[in-house]
Formats: sequence, structure tokens, C-alpha cells
Amino acid sequence: MPEIKPYESQVWRVSVHTRILKKEPVPGSWERLGGRGLVARILLDEVPPECEPLGPKNKLLFCPGLLTGHMLSSIDRLSVGGKSPLTGGVKESNSGGTTSLQIASMGIKALIVEDWPAESGWSVMHLSMDGVRFDPANDLTGLGVYDTAETLKNRYGKKVAISIIGPAGERKLMSAGIFNLDKDGVPSRINARGGLGAVMGSKGLKAIVFDAAGGSKPPLVDAEAFRATQKIYNKYLIDHPQTHTYSDYGTPAMVHLTDGLGGLPTRNFSSGTFEYADDISGEKLRELILERGGEGNTTHACMPGCIIRCSNIFAGEDGKTIVSPIEYETIGLMGSNLGIREYDWIGRLNWQANDLGVCSIELGAALGVAAEAGYMEWGDGKRALELCDEIRNNTPLGRILGSGAAFTGKILGVERVPVVKNQAMSAYEPRAIKGMGVTFATTPQGADHTCGQTVRDKINHLLPAGQVELSLKKQIAMAGYDSIGACIFAAFGFAVAPAETIRDFINARYGWGVDTSILQTLGKQTIEMELEFNRGAGFTKANDRLPEWMTREPVPPHNVVFDVPTEELDKIFEW
Amino acid sequence: MPEIKPYESQVWRVSVHTRILKKEPVPGSWERLGGRGLVARILLDEVPPECEPLGPKNKLLFCPGLLTGHMLSSIDRLSVGGKSPLTGGVKESNSGGTTSLQIASMGIKALIVEDWPAESGWSVMHLSMDGVRFDPANDLTGLGVYDTAETLKNRYGKKVAISIIGPAGERKLMSAGIFNLDKDGVPSRINARGGLGAVMGSKGLKAIVFDAAGGSKPPLVDAEAFRATQKIYNKYLIDHPQTHTYSDYGTPAMVHLTDGLGGLPTRNFSSGTFEYADDISGEKLRELILERGGEGNTTHACMPGCIIRCSNIFAGEDGKTIVSPIEYETIGLMGSNLGIREYDWIGRLNWQANDLGVCSIELGAALGVAAEAGYMEWGDGKRALELCDEIRNNTPLGRILGSGAAFTGKILGVERVPVVKNQAMSAYEPRAIKGMGVTFATTPQGADHTCGQTVRDKINHLLPAGQVELSLKKQIAMAGYDSIGACIFAAFGFAVAPAETIRDFINARYGWGVDTSILQTLGKQTIEMELEFNRGAGFTKANDRLPEWMTREPVPPHNVVFDVPTEELDKIFEW
Repeated sequence: MPEIKPYESQVWRVSVHTRILKKEPVPGSWERLGGRGLVARILLDEVPPECEPLGPKNKLLFCPGLLTGHMLSSIDRLSVGGKSPLTGGVKESNSGGTTSLQIASMGIKALIVEDWPAESGWSVMHLSMDGVRFDPANDLTGLGVYDTAETLKNRYGKKVAISIIGPAGERKLMSAGIFNLDKDGVPSRINARGGLGAVMGSKGLKAIVFDAAGGSKPPLVDAEAFRATQKIYNKYLIDHPQTHTYSDYGTPAMVHLTDGLGGLPTRNFSSGTFEYADDISGEKLRELILERGGEGNTTHACMPGCIIRCSNIFAGEDGKTIVSPIEYETIGLMGSNLGIREYDWIGRLNWQANDLGVCSIELGAALGVAAEAGYMEWGDGKRALELCDEIRNNTPLGRILGSGAAFTGKILGVERVPVVKNQAMSAYEPRAIKGMGVTFATTPQGADHTCGQTVRDKINHLLPAGQVELSLKKQIAMAGYDSIGACIFAAFGFAVAPAETIRDFINARYGWGVDTSILQTLGKQTIEMELEFNRGAGFTKANDRLPEWMTREPVPPHNVVFDVPTEELDKIFEW
Repeated sequence: MPEIKPYESQVWRVSVHTRILKKEPVPGSWERLGGRGLVARILLDEVPPECEPLGPKNKLLFCPGLLTGHMLSSIDRLSVGGKSPLTGGVKESNSGGTTSLQIASMGIKALIVEDWPAESGWSVMHLSMDGVRFDPANDLTGLGVYDTAETLKNRYGKKVAISIIGPAGERKLMSAGIFNLDKDGVPSRINARGGLGAVMGSKGLKAIVFDAAGGSKPPLVDAEAFRATQKIYNKYLIDHPQTHTYSDYGTPAMVHLTDGLGGLPTRNFSSGTFEYADDISGEKLRELILERGGEGNTTHACMPGCIIRCSNIFAGEDGKTIVSPIEYETIGLMGSNLGIREYDWIGRLNWQANDLGVCSIELGAALGVAAEAGYMEWGDGKRALELCDEIRNNTPLGRILGSGAAFTGKILGVERVPVVKNQAMSAYEPRAIKGMGVTFATTPQGADHTCGQTVRDKINHLLPAGQVELSLKKQIAMAGYDSIGACIFAAFGFAVAPAETIRDFINARYGWGVDTSILQTLGKQTIEMELEFNRGAGFTKANDRLPEWMTREPVPPHNVVFDVPTEELDKIFEW
């Protein structure tokens, strides 16, 4: 057992050029920020907004949330950030898994990865309490995410956390993500959106290993109060009906909900309802998993200590794992959006996306655009897998698809592309679920459901009235959650007394004496900083729009266009 | 002979959806504008700046210059405009040839082509004094520009003017141009830049035929004064030494000049000097043409009445035409920029670009980026032609290349891409010829030498001092020239007394009583309108930059970076 070092919260700064790690005190203005908020602050302070995202001036940031480090259920998430090669703006992409917990245990407030490597070739950056080491990794070139994870677990042991890029990240494809191990060592927890895997690729890093041996949990100012609050939070979480739905069905429970609203993206967003929605529903997935047995599991935790356990393991007829997990977003984008109704195809496509190291939302949307351009027939899962092979083989078509939906549309000459700020929409048809349309249009992150989810709110989703207000409320809350390290579903635990519970957690952890407005404050600060970065990067209101065709083409079954007035969109952040 | 109708200056508005032509009076605020200035005005008045460039809200505009219609030497140019699919901003692209003269003779102040066609399939839009007709043209689908021109000349006679798109425009590739006939019926006068061919493709038009039979020259308020001014202008033009250089050598005379300045783009802008510059010089081209004889010609006029006759016809060893003309920009981008030293390859590449219907600057730059990504060896003309075939065959790689250099770089993962606002730089290395760098960075049109050429000015091109002032002066003058319909070389005729000559022409033509500030006024107005459109489209100062790598990587032989301060760039248009 290594000696436990006294806990010290520091900024760890590594130049991939000099390969030197500098541990720095946390600047005063960064202290009360974490996760997404801290990403925005560091970008504003250190990255020129006009810089080339894949150039030496961009930085790759790893920031645990403010409450990360204590195995609170669903509150150990990791924010990875940088300037996005996909959107050209601010990017924070968060994930579950074990990385954030290890980072927090090492006392790393923020890891800042800088510059370009001095030489070509690939490295694994190994971080431990002893410092940084760059291990040669050219033998991993072109290796998929799953094999890379196995190789690195054998090389570095099973106790470390690992962040990995796949072939897509190495090739700087704009849909490339960063893949983290879940609590069982499966590299399925993904900082998926915005191409941060390409930024990591531009730094010459195939993987980053975080070894927290000798580290310790972040200190609690008032451990007793923390545990008392945790008890209340857990009770609310366990009592919340959605916790049980997500435990039983996971996020695929959403399929029937969105299809019912006419908001399930189907055949490249040409319809909001899928005639085979039953076949890709959460109920069907659960039935299949239970029926097939073997390695399949209807419920599974991505982070240690999670009560909800919304993840799943999908196995084939032979009982062997096809992929873990299958999430609603992937079902929407790689299922109905491609006209595919069989979970066996969706699961295999999902595995391919993961192994290639791309965002499954972005790839699903790109395949939908490619289908519209004639590169596949709707519903042809086999052909969709062949198109994934094009990415693996690094063909021109593969590079197009791996560059995401927006660029696929530009290159293939398709106007009907479901993107905002070049980032693909997740699986909510924004003409039918208009609050999501507002979130997609206005969030500084580019189209992203996790920036302000409105689908479960009591509102007529088909009408424009009230959507801006609703989206704003959700956007502020999510920017707050993303800053404390909370999963979107932690909201179930905060549902009854969110302001008080979060206040009590923060005060017990840090002793700051914050009041009940803390979530709002964190959320607004974060969005304001992100907007400032984007303005510097050249964004204007003209970027806060859904694609023109969505204002022109009515989407079945309700035959609605997106009609939230642009004047309202433009005022959303005037608080 | 058709009856000559009384001359009436009108706006001709055609909806490709209804196929109806409306002739409208010229609005007061449009009257004193022409060419590029009128394009900017119409875009501001009628096209939402945020619109999708290939969608139904964009319009395709054909505007003759203010002085077009009288066969003044080098002053019958045509401005075509619209929102650019390549840059996403304002676009005016002008060309020589016979189209503008015919349009002016028909009394068309501006042709505005609107909306999307009601049905798929291709048409030839036929405009005459009798109105508009849409002729089916599906038989021309996929046909190259040269064969299309031959077919249409046979179909419509040799007296008409024709604007044509190639396969690239049909496929909405972002480097697609619009090709006009020169005075000998060769479709070599190109509205090349910014992807306006794709806009024409989005309107379902394979070609537009302008039949001026029954039309007449625009009236002159004071014919005598006009002729007197013309006499002075012609004398200045004939006396100017450059007129003779361009007559003998054409634009390829520029090769030795830029190479001498260290500003000849070589191997994807990795050097500013080419060791085989002699082989691609104007002198060498003239020597080759004279030596080979046959159809070759060292001097040739693109517009009727041109005194300079800078165009040429390049023939092979068998005396048969390879292409006409070869221009300096193509030599720079498809020669040195690809490491190609043989005119026989350059000429064939140029022909391919023309026949496919793309901008040869944009394609040359895209091929340079592709070479950097490993898709061809430097200097391999045969391989470069194979890559052109990829465009012809509409393969994914062809679609990437046909989308221009910026998107080729994004998709192929190359950072060293010579573009501004997604448009490829013409053949002036902006680190060594810094005034061109200022023009590339700041013109609302995206990188384009014709928006403000500084290479012949007496300044130390390697130093940043004075470049912003010089570029501004040139940008204003060129925006003025582009508004009256003058070729950049008409400046030779205006060199001695530009303000007086242009004033006198305008007053003799229109009787407006303008003073000597008219060129400045037209130029400034035009740029202001263009900036306003771009602001609406979401452009900011962040778009007025050379690529970051040009500020970081010194270019041989002078090993200079681009170091004109951004603060100076940002103030250029604060007059």
C-alpha cells in the first residue's frame, strides 16, 4: 500500500510538448467552480476563443464536479472541456464512470493538458501521486476502444481510471469522444459530444491513466452534516417513481414517451413517430434481455454507489454481451432515425460507435443524412454496419461520416440535416417537443438534450408558448448540475427540496455558507461564461437557430413546424 | 430581324417555382448601383442573411456593371451574386465573356432568380425580349461544361449568351461556378468563386440563355462626351506598359513577380518560392504556345472590344487546344501549389476544373490539402487528374474535393489549409505579400485577390507596416470597379486620371452629375452593404483572420509569418 499523502486541491498542468507536470495552487476565481463551470472559466482565462481547436493553443480540460469524490449516488461525474472542433465554440461534455472519482481523490481540481507534442507518435499519459509519465503507445495505433481498454487494464492494473480515444480520435474526426471505464472496467462512459476525442488526438494522447493510489477522498468540512444530507437525498431518490422506471427500463423508457408526443426522430427527422416504436421500446429491451439471459442485465450502475442503476447490458441470443449499455439516445438516432427496428442491429451499431470512438448520436445522425443521400436504405442494419467499417478503414466516406452530421450534409449535398452549431440533435424532434428545440437552438454547447431537458414537463409541447421560459429554467438547472458533478437523473433525488439539499451538501463539503440560490448561481455563471467564450469565438444570435428546413417542413404526425419566434430565442439569456 | 423594342431598364424577377417572369421598375435605391454594389443592395433588401444558401430563400442575382453595354474595353463584366454556400456570407463573383453585354442590351438592370423548383429535374431558362421559357434539360444531366455549351449553342444559336453549370453545380458542390461564353463561344469566363454554381443548381437550372434579339444598347445621355472619354481612356490603356505585358504574356506574367517576392504558393503554401518557377512562367508559356503553333494563341480577348486581350489559348504538341485560357491563379494553385512544373498537366487540370464546373483556385487549393493528407504526391499531374475523375464520378472523395479546400481540410484532418471564411486563397502567399493577407482576411467576400490586389504596389511586402492602409485603398477601388463592370486591368486605362475618366463616363451615360469621388463612393457603399449582410449572417471580427498556422509557421524563403496586428485588421473599415 502506498503512503497516503495529505489532501491538497491543486491545478495539474501538463504540457505534452515539454512533458512536464506543474502543480499549481487553485486561483481564487476558480475555487468555487467545478465541472462545467470550471471548464468555462479556464477556457475564458487561458484559451484564445479564436484559436484553431486542433491547434496548439487549445487545451483539454478534465474537471470533476464540486461534489465529486464521495460516491454520492449519481454525483461523481466528470466534465471534459476545450474548444470544440465540431462547433467551433465552448465545449463541455460530461460522463459517468470511474475517472472523476479518481481525479478527485488525487486532489486534482482541474487537469489542463496543453500544447502539441514535439514529435509525432502516440503516448499514454500516466498520472499518479508521483507525477506524470509518458509511456510510448504506438503499438495501440488504430486499436479500437474496447481492445485498448483491455490492453491498458492489463498494463496498468484494474484499479486505475482510464480515458481513451479510438481510431476516430487519432484521426481527428470531429465526432470523436473520450471513453472512460465504468465500475466494471467497460469503456462505455463517454465524453461523447463535440469532438473532444479529436482534441485529445491532437495532443498525441491515445489514453490518460489516472492512478489515485496514495490519494484520498476530498475532505469534508462537516462530515456529519454531509452524511445527514446524503441520507435525505438518498431517501428522495429511492422514493422517486422515475428512479424505479429507470432502474427497470433505463433511458429506453423514453421511446414510448417521445413517440407518443410525435417527437421520436424517424428516418432522418422526416417523421416524429415510428411505426415500429414497440420493437425499440424500453419494455421490449427489458423483455429481450430477460428472455435471453446470459450476460445480459436489465439494470447496471455506471458509477460506484449509484442507486438508480439506469444502465444495462444487452446480450445476443447466445447470451454473450453485444454492447453495454444501450441508451435511449442511441436507440433514437441509430434505430428509428435510420428506420431500424431490431435491437440486434442497434446494439451492434452502438458497439461499433463505441469501439471506433465516436459519439453514437452524431454517428446516427450522420448515417441518417447519408441514407437521405442514397448511401443506405432505411432499415438496412447490415449496410449501416458496413458504413461503420468505412470509418474503421479510414476511407473518404468514413471520414465524412466520422466528421458528424453537419459536415456529412455539407459534403453530400443534403439540406435536411438535424444540427445546431454543427452538432447533431439528440433524439427529440424539436418541432414536436418545442422546449427541446429552444434548448437545442440556444444552448452555447450546440444541440444537446442534456443542456435543458423539457420532455417530462407539463406543457403542450406542440405549441410555442412558454417554451423559452421552460427551456431557460432547465438550462440554468442543468448548468448547475453539470458544475456540481450531478447526473441529469440526480434531479430525482433533488426533486423535493433541490435548493436546500444542494446548499447543505456544498456547505458540509466546503463550509462556504452558500444559500439556497447556489444551483441557480452556478448555472447562470456557467452559461454567462460560455456565452462570453462563444462571442469571442465569433458566435452571434444567427447561430442560435434551428435549421431553416425545420421552420418550413411540417413533421408528421402532428404536422408542425418549429415556430418559436426568433425574437424570443434571442432574449432567452437576458436575465 | 426582330423588331427593336424601346430601351427600358427594369428588374427582371423569375420564380423557378411558378416559372413566371415579372418585369418591375427599378427601385430608387437601386438606380445608381450596378454590378457588385447592386448585388449587395438586393441581398440586403431581399435575402434573409441567416438563410440556408441552398434553400428556397436564397436568390441568384445577375447584375451588369453600371457602364456595361457599350463594348468599352474591359468594362463589360457581369456580377453574379447570392448568399455563398461556401462562405455563408455575401457573394459577388464577376466574369468577362458575353453575358453581361447581352443582359444590358435586354434592359435588364438585375435578374433575380428566386425560390426552389416545384419538381425535380433540370431546365434551361430561356430569357428573351418576349419573356421567359423553361426548356426541359434532363438530357444534359451530368454533362460537362464544354459539351453543354456545344449542345446549347446548337440548340439556341450562336448569337445568344449562355450561363452554364457543370456536374459540380448540379451536385451542389461548394466550389461550383457559373460558366459564360467568351466572344468565341468558349465557356471559359467564370463566375468562379464562392459556390454560386451550387446556388444555380439548387434552383434546378442547368443553364440560362440570354437572347438579346430585339434589344438595344443602353442609351447614352451624352453620346459625344461618352465617345470623347472613351478615346482618352483607350489612349491611356494602350499607352500603359502593363497592357503590353498582359497582351504578350497574360496573367502568367505574374509568376516571376510573385516567386521573386517569395510569394508564389508552393506545395500547399509550405513555401513561397518554387524551384521550377521558370517552367511555369509567362515567358515559358508564350514560348511553348509560339513553338507549338496550331490552335494556340498568345493573346486573345474574352470580351468583345477588349484592347488588352490578356487571355490565351494553350495547345498541345499536336496543335490542338488543351484549354483556353491558362491564368496565373490556376498556374499558382494547380502548378506550384501541387509541385507540378509541366504546363501540359496544368492545362489539362484546368480543362478538367472548367468541364466539371468548379473554381480552379478552389480545386487547386483542395488538391494541395489532399496531397498533404497523402492522397497524391507533389508533382504527380497524372494523379491530380485521377482526383478530378473522383469529382466527375461523384465519389465521396470527389465530393470532399469539390467542396473546396476548407472542407477538404476539415474532413481529411489537415490543419494547414489556406482559406479565409472557408474560401481558398488565390495565388499570393499572404505571409510574404502581406497586403494580400490583409485583403484575404478582411474582405467580406472571403479570400480573393480581386477584392484588393497589392502585389504591384511600392511597399516592402514582407513588413506589416502600411499594409492595412494599402489594402483598404485597393479594396475600395476594386469594389468600385466591380460596380461599374470594369475588369481589374481596366485600371491601366484609369491609371492616369481615374477619378475624372470614370466621372465623365458615368455622367455621359446617365447624366447624374457625379463628381470625381464616384469610384470611392461606389466602393465604400458596396463594402458597407456587404459588411452589413455578413453581420446579419453571423460574421464577426473573428472571421477576419488568416488561419492560425500562418501566424505560427514561417514561410520560406524569407521565413516570415503573418504579423499584421489583429487590432489593425479590426479597424480597417472604420472610415
